[in-house]
Amino acid sequence: MTNETERNLTMLCDFYELTMGNGYLAAGMADRVCYFDLFFRSVPDGGGFAIAAGLEQVIDYVQDLHFGKADIDYLRGRGIFSEDFLSYLADFRFTGDIWAVPEGTPVFPKEPLLVVRAPAIQAQLLETYMLCVINHQSLIATKANRIVRAAKGRTVLEFGSRRAQGADAAIVGARAAYIGGCAGTACAISDQLYGVPAGGTMAHAWVQMFDTELDAFRAYCKTYPTSATLLVDTYNTLHSGVPNAIRAFDEILRPMGIKKCGIRLDSGDLAYLSRQARKMLDEAGWPECTITTSNSLDEYLIRDLIGQGACIDCFGVGERLITARSEPVFGGVYKLAAVENPDGSITPKIKISENTGKITNPHFKKLYRLYARDTGKALADYLCVYDETVDDSKNLVIFDPEATWKRKEVYDFAARELLVPIFKGGQLVYEKPSLEDIKTYCAAQTDTLWEEVRRFENPHRYYVDLSQKLWDIKNDLLHERP
Amino acid sequence: MTNETERNLTMLCDFYELTMGNGYLAAGMADRVCYFDLFFRSVPDGGGFAIAAGLEQVIDYVQDLHFGKADIDYLRGRGIFSEDFLSYLADFRFTGDIWAVPEGTPVFPKEPLLVVRAPAIQAQLLETYMLCVINHQSLIATKANRIVRAAKGRTVLEFGSRRAQGADAAIVGARAAYIGGCAGTACAISDQLYGVPAGGTMAHAWVQMFDTELDAFRAYCKTYPTSATLLVDTYNTLHSGVPNAIRAFDEILRPMGIKKCGIRLDSGDLAYLSRQARKMLDEAGWPECTITTSNSLDEYLIRDLIGQGACIDCFGVGERLITARSEPVFGGVYKLAAVENPDGSITPKIKISENTGKITNPHFKKLYRLYARDTGKALADYLCVYDETVDDSKNLVIFDPEATWKRKEVYDFAARELLVPIFKGGQLVYEKPSLEDIKTYCAAQTDTLWEEVRRFENPHRYYVDLSQKLWDIKNDLLHERP
Repeated sequence: MTNETERNLTMLCDFYELTMGNGYLAAGMADRVCYFDLFFRSVPDGGGFAIAAGLEQVIDYVQDLHFGKADIDYLRGRGIFSEDFLSYLADFRFTGDIWAVPEGTPVFPKEPLLVVRAPAIQAQLLETYMLCVINHQSLIATKANRIVRAAKGRTVLEFGSRRAQGADAAIVGARAAYIGGCAGTACAISDQLYGVPAGGTMAHAWVQMFDTELDAFRAYCKTYPTSATLLVDTYNTLHSGVPNAIRAFDEILRPMGIKKCGIRLDSGDLAYLSRQARKMLDEAGWPECTITTSNSLDEYLIRDLIGQGACIDCFGVGERLITARSEPVFGGVYKLAAVENPDGSITPKIKISENTGKITNPHFKKLYRLYARDTGKALADYLCVYDETVDDSKNLVIFDPEATWKRKEVYDFAARELLVPIFKGGQLVYEKPSLEDIKTYCAAQTDTLWEEVRRFENPHRYYVDLSQKLWDIKNDLLHERP
Repeated sequence: MTNETERNLTMLCDFYELTMGNGYLAAGMADRVCYFDLFFRSVPDGGGFAIAAGLEQVIDYVQDLHFGKADIDYLRGRGIFSEDFLSYLADFRFTGDIWAVPEGTPVFPKEPLLVVRAPAIQAQLLETYMLCVINHQSLIATKANRIVRAAKGRTVLEFGSRRAQGADAAIVGARAAYIGGCAGTACAISDQLYGVPAGGTMAHAWVQMFDTELDAFRAYCKTYPTSATLLVDTYNTLHSGVPNAIRAFDEILRPMGIKKCGIRLDSGDLAYLSRQARKMLDEAGWPECTITTSNSLDEYLIRDLIGQGACIDCFGVGERLITARSEPVFGGVYKLAAVENPDGSITPKIKISENTGKITNPHFKKLYRLYARDTGKALADYLCVYDETVDDSKNLVIFDPEATWKRKEVYDFAARELLVPIFKGGQLVYEKPSLEDIKTYCAAQTDTLWEEVRRFENPHRYYVDLSQKLWDIKNDLLHERP
C-alpha cells in the first residue's frame, strides 16, 4: 500500500465475519433477522464505572459501509467465497436498526452499550470495527476521567500522540480523552478534525538549537509573548532553566505589561522542583506564571503529587493516558441475544460458558437508569425485555441478578431509557451531538454517581438489575439442553 | 469529520512542532540543518532486545508530506502563525536525508533506529508521526516475537483486531505481529493491504444461529469442507462441542476422504480440555484434526500450557498481543544530536537531565553490529562518529559506556553497518523489501542472538558500546556549562 488514505474500513473485519456471511447465505439464513448486544464484562483498573465513547465513529462507519471493486477482487482471489456472496457484497449496505447509549454516559458491566437488529450477514459484519472503536475510545475516555478526577480541578492535557498505538489511537484517542474530561491535546489533527483544543510550546530541541538556553527562551517569548510556556529542564531546572525563564520574562514580557506565562517541568522530582520553582517565580514577581508538568504521569502519581503539596497548575499526561497503560484492554464483546422468526416473534438466545462470567443476558432488551428524584443520584440500572416498560410513578422491586435473594424496593425515582435509536431501517435517525455537548454531558452524568462509586480503590458496586421476566427467561435457557 | 478517509497525516503532529517551526522561521533558523536520532531507552517486558518495525509506513508518510488548503486555513485560523510560515508550509516537502535500521532487525536501547538530517522545521515536523508509527509497530513486533518464541514452533495467529486501540492499531498491528513471527492474522484488511495471511472460521453466533450445535457444525463443514475449524465451547466443550464436531466430521468430511480439519477452544481450562479433546479426536479417527486455542493468551500462559502437556497446535492470540498488554508503551524518543554549521562542520549537541538515563548520545553517528566469524553470533553493537570506520580485518577494543573500565578486545569479527540510507535530498533511495523478506530477515537475525539474550527473564545484557572518540565528545559536552 502506498497511500494510507485509500483504505476502506469496511474491510477492517475479522475474516470469519466473511466466512460466516458466505455460510449464512449458503445455508439460506442471510435474511434471518437477529439481535446482537455490545457490552463489556469488567471496568478497567478496578474502577466503579466506565465512560461510553466511539459512537460517532461507528455512525460514520455504518454510513460508509460498502465493498469496492478492489475489495471484491481481493475476496474472489481467496477462492472460498461463492459468486452469490460476492454479488451480495457488491450491493451491500446496512438496512438494519441500531440503538446505543450516548457517548459520555457512565456505563457498567454486562449492560448493552449498543444493540443491532439486522439480517445475519449485516449484523455479523459490523462486529469487528464497532468493537475496535468502542473498546478503544471507551478505554481512553474512562482512563481520562480517572486522571481528571485525580487532578481535582487542575487542568489535564493529553500529550501522548507519539506513544499512541498507531495513527487512529492518537487522533481519536485525543477525542476520547477530551470526552473523559481533559481540557485539550497536543495533537494538531485532533483539533482540526474534531475540535479538541490543541496547544503546545517547545521541545528540548528548541532549547538545544540555540547557542544558549537564555537565547532560546528570549526568542520564544518574542515570537509568542502572550502564550510563552518555557521548558526549563534541558540542562538544570533550578540553576539554569527557571532563572533563565525569569530573565526572559523580565526582559521581554514585563515591558509589554504581560503577566501570564508558564514554565514546564519534564524530569526530576516534580513535587520538589515545582515547589522550588513556584517560590522562585513568586519572589521574582511572576505569580501568574503557571507550572505545567509532564513525565509518565497517571492518576496515582497525580494524586500523590497533590498530596505532597506540589505547586502544579497543569498536568500533561502522555503514554499512560493514550495507551491506558495500567490496563490497556477494554474487553467489550458482541454477542447474539435473539433471532426473529418469520412471524415477527423473537426467540431469545444465550451463550453458556465454562466461565460463568461469560454467560450472556439473552433477548432483545431495554436499559433504564433509575435516578432518585430528591438527590438526582443514579440508584441502579434496570435491564428488561423489549416489551416491558418501567412506570416510574410506582415503586419498583429490583434484585441482584447474581444474589437473587438481595431485593429492594425503589421509590420516588425517575427512569430514563439509556439506549436511544441511532439507525432505523438503515437510515440515521440520531442527531449527533457536538463534542462540547458530549463532554459537558459526561461531566454532568459522572456527577450523578455517588462518590463511593467514583473512588479509585474498592468502589461501591453499582447494580445492573434484571427484570423478573428477563431473569426467568435467562434461567429457563440455562436449564435447557442445547 | 464525516469521512475518516480524508485525513492528511501531515497534520498528525504535536502542535509544538508547528509553533517551533514558526519560531525557527522567525528566528532566522529555518534552514539550519540539524541531525535527530530516534532511539528507545528500555526493552518492554524486561526483554533482552526489541524488533524494529514501522519503517515502510514512515517512508509512505514522508513521501506524502504536504499541507493542503484546509490545513493552511485551519492553521491560519489559530491566529498565531505568520503568513511567511504559512507560505512556507504551503510549499512544504521533505528535502533531507534519512538513515534507518531495516525493519525486522533486533535492536537495543540507546542506539539510533533512525537518523534524520534536514533543515530544522522539516526535521522537527517529522517527530510525532515517526515516533508514533515506529513505537507502535516495534512494540507489537517485539511482543509477537516473544509470544512466537514461547510457542516453540507451534503456530501463532494474531486475533486481536476488536481489542486494538483504534483502526490503525488493528491494521498495521497485524503487519507488525507478522514481522515478529506470527503466521497470520484474523484481520481481512491487513491481508488485502499488506499480504498478512488472514484466516478465520466462526464465532459463537454461528453456533447459536442454528437450532442445534450439530446443525451449525454440519452447515459449516458443507460450505468449507477443506478448512473447517469448529468452535466447540458454545454450550459444553467435552459433552457437546467435541462429540458434535466429530459427528459432523464423520458425516460430511469422511465420505469426501478429507482428513484435515480443526476445532477451537475459547474458554475453560485449556490444558485439560485440549488433552481430553485430543484423546477423543484420536480415538474417533481424526488424528490430523488440529486444536486451536484462544482466550487471553500471552507468552507466559503459552509457556505454561506447553509445560502442562497441553495438546495445542495453534495459538490464537488477541488482546494481549495487539495491545502488548503487559507493557503497552514502547518509549522511543527523538532527540537533537547535532547541528550543521554554514561551513559544513558539525557541532554535536547533548541533552542533559536530572535522570541520568535520559542523557543522550551526541553527534551524527554510525552504528555497527559486530558478528563473530566462527559462530555467526552477534557480539556487540558499536556506535561511532560519522567519520569513523570500523576495519574488521583488525582487532577492536570496545568498552561499556556506563562502566568504562570494562574493556574487551574483539577479534575475528565481521562488522555490518545497521543504519542504511532511506532518503537522500528528499528522494527515496531505498528499495522497500517485501513483507515476507522482512519476516524472514527478522527470524534469521533473531537467531544471531545468543540464547542468553533471548530468554524472557533476566536476559544477558547485550552491549551497545561507544567508540573512544564518541565517548570523549560526550564527556566533554557533559562537563561544559550551558
